Amino acid sequence: MRFVSFSTNLLPVPHLGLMRGEEVVDVDLAGRVLGLPVPDQMQELIEHYEHYQTSLQAIIERAGERPFTEVKIFREIGAAHDLQAVTLAAPIVRPRKNIFCLAVNYVAHAQETAEIRQRSAEAPADPVFFTKAPTTVNAPFGSIIIDPEVSTEIDWEVELGVIIGKAGKNISAHEAMNYVFGYTVLNDVTARDLQARHKQFFKGKSLDGSCPMGPWIVTADEIADPHHLAIRLKVNNVIKQDGNTEQMIFSIPQTIEVLSRGMTLEPGDIIATGTPSGVGFSRKPAEFLRPGDLMESEIEGIGVLRNSIVRA
Amino acid sequence: MRFVSFSTNLLPVPHLGLMRGEEVVDVDLAGRVLGLPVPDQMQELIEHYEHYQTSLQAIIERAGERPFTEVKIFREIGAAHDLQAVTLAAPIVRPRKNIFCLAVNYVAHAQETAEIRQRSAEAPADPVFFTKAPTTVNAPFGSIIIDPEVSTEIDWEVELGVIIGKAGKNISAHEAMNYVFGYTVLNDVTARDLQARHKQFFKGKSLDGSCPMGPWIVTADEIADPHHLAIRLKVNNVIKQDGNTEQMIFSIPQTIEVLSRGMTLEPGDIIATGTPSGVGFSRKPAEFLRPGDLMESEIEGIGVLRNSIVRA
Repeated sequence: MRFVSFSTNLLPVPHLGLMRGEEVVDVDLAGRVLGLPVPDQMQELIEHYEHYQTSLQAIIERAGERPFTEVKIFREIGAAHDLQAVTLAAPIVRPRKNIFCLAVNYVAHAQETAEIRQRSAEAPADPVFFTKAPTTVNAPFGSIIIDPEVSTEIDWEVELGVIIGKAGKNISAHEAMNYVFGYTVLNDVTARDLQARHKQFFKGKSLDGSCPMGPWIVTADEIADPHHLAIRLKVNNVIKQDGNTEQMIFSIPQTIEVLSRGMTLEPGDIIATGTPSGVGFSRKPAEFLRPGDLMESEIEGIGVLRNSIVRA
Repeated sequence: MRFVSFSTNLLPVPHLGLMRGEEVVDVDLAGRVLGLPVPDQMQELIEHYEHYQTSLQAIIERAGERPFTEVKIFREIGAAHDLQAVTLAAPIVRPRKNIFCLAVNYVAHAQETAEIRQRSAEAPADPVFFTKAPTTVNAPFGSIIIDPEVSTEIDWEVELGVIIGKAGKNISAHEAMNYVFGYTVLNDVTARDLQARHKQFFKGKSLDGSCPMGPWIVTADEIADPHHLAIRLKVNNVIKQDGNTEQMIFSIPQTIEVLSRGMTLEPGDIIATGTPSGVGFSRKPAEFLRPGDLMESEIEGIGVLRNSIVRA
């Protein structure tokens, strides 16, 4: 299944939607009219997904072959919408902790980074983790506000986001995929000047709005192989990053194994799995995002983020 | 004022307590019996402190010169306790995001670290920030569980914790102290082997339970000068760190100014302001915490954390 967090003029607080095709059904409203126990928020869905699956299935079965918007009981209470008619928020509107991120997890990106920093181009022997604050979370089609007084080197990093579905610690790679709820697209927008100036990555990675995410979460059962997805980034329709998740240095199971050693992962946790080559700061000459740019971040089988760059 | 998050056998979920001397009054129960609007949780107190101050003052005035436990109306409903009779949780039981931490923010600690890492001993020109996950939070007298399969180099770092009281972005150093709700003691317990192995600090800083905190939050008005407090750490009653917050490289206002540049700080955010010299890994020979050790972290005018080290 595919789930969004969305709002409408009538219900302006982001809440849970179930997608099908180009439609979205308001899970809370649909569940209420059908007398089914359902969640209203993505975090609750993730925490109790098994419990709610029967209800979700019943909502879909009620529509059958018809579009949601043609089901009278949904239409009458305003539970069915064309995707175009709603506003999407980040699927997890407010994560309960910082987003876990992997640095240099694609070989070619490790090489381009090493070249610019004049270091050896060896891939890391162990995964390198940093975090982005929850205040970085941005909508899938939200604007990225850049303030030249804060940073003049705002760069892109399209990444596959892994959403954790259940709590666990010391999870083995063998068991790790059982802990994955689903996947999303995210962009680890980075202030290169701040990243360098403050040594540890956190500050340059955590400007407000620097983590657009979505457009939805695709549950794990719908992605046959998360290590075989085209991953692409365009700026103003010019391809800048063009990789495949098969190029990851540390796979998703390896990452979960190492990250969860001695540290409990929780439902709703988000792991950004690193970016392929083609980021701005390693280009010659270096390129950074400027007001007026349109940044598009795409992963095969999931979707596309579209973010306009706007000056503060 | 001094506030704790505490539980009792009858009310096992941590909730807000107001301290006076060696007593604690249950704010929710006391407020209810006096018909006053009060918060039940520390986060809510911090977010609306001004709103609740009249009620808190009324609770104190009700007791007057008497101990809380001798006020009949409090005693009858079980709202007053000797501090010894309750269990303290971390004052902010579950922070809403990772804890912000400053690396190398005391000159002598920057020097000892540089020496061990064979780097130049220059103090950083800009503050270095990393984070600890909310799952690191531990009670002020909680056990630190160490698992030799995860790390064999668990080290101590006593630090002054600054609690942010209101939201702000691009806060000037001049205005910064108006954003401080209060102070606490914390220990940025660190797995040195993981810190080195994973390059970025996050992984080695985020093992479960590696951030004991408390015993309480002291509101900003009770600390005349947070940059003039003795800060001390003992292991098995032997002093290992013995500094003063006046030795900070970046002051609290400077830290808030830089951290909030382009990034919104929120009520309940916690900033760990760095540790003085005397950590274990820079000693000759290096020292690390072992099962059976008792670690005590103390800051003048705030209090003492006491944590036993226990093998997993």
